[in-house]
Amino acid sequence: MMRKIEHIGIAVKSLEESNLLFEKLLGQPAYKEEEVESEGVKTSFFMNGPNKIELLEATNPDSPIAKFLEKKGEGIHHIAFDVEDILVEIDRLKTEGFTVLNETPKKGADNKLVAFLHPKTTNGVLIELCQEIK
Amino acid sequence: MMRKIEHIGIAVKSLEESNLLFEKLLGQPAYKEEEVESEGVKTSFFMNGPNKIELLEATNPDSPIAKFLEKKGEGIHHIAFDVEDILVEIDRLKTEGFTVLNETPKKGADNKLVAFLHPKTTNGVLIELCQEIK
Repeated sequence: MMRKIEHIGIAVKSLEESNLLFEKLLGQPAYKEEEVESEGVKTSFFMNGPNKIELLEATNPDSPIAKFLEKKGEGIHHIAFDVEDILVEIDRLKTEGFTVLNETPKKGADNKLVAFLHPKTTNGVLIELCQEIK
Repeated sequence: MMRKIEHIGIAVKSLEESNLLFEKLLGQPAYKEEEVESEGVKTSFFMNGPNKIELLEATNPDSPIAKFLEKKGEGIHHIAFDVEDILVEIDRLKTEGFTVLNETPKKGADNKLVAFLHPKTTNGVLIELCQEIK
């Protein structure tokens, strides 16, 4: 079950500049910065009530975020939904006809197990499932 | 103050088809459909815990959603933040240097007063402020 929007991921050119911008927008600073080497990104996270905003900057030119920026420019990259049990949810969504990009969840930022759905099966929206690692 | 993500707006070609898709994705059907004539859109809304997903279909070729679909295809169109007092928030954001597209809030879907920030001042993200009409 998708319990809530865990976060919205936004691709930015400069984490430093965008951190200031989103601090003004949301009225509070990022609560953490974290690099995910396997994905080639540096991230920052902002709380917003029950939800979060994640900013993503590419750390190398082969990073998915670098490619996204090149193709589409800065903007919303993905929506992440909070799930209780990511394996159960992956099974449910496969049965419903969605294409899961990684059926084995991987370790994402902010202490989460994550999996992505292919945007071709979800109206062009890149959707992430994320489960907190206990 | 931005209290939470009120909803994410997703531009779709066919509300009918995408309603079925998001019903499968989120595990429950849309709780309402509503046309906003002034914006040239038909919308549907899905609950997701404390948040909502809004699907938007254009009802005429001059609709902002028709132009978005033409330029970018289906996908995430905007993020809406829930605010307690939209006029106070518009003033705060103007002071912080953001460009507010309509300084006089207008009536949006789902019983809300809404105002938009120009994506040029927000890393390419179209941001909506929305206040429940009491």
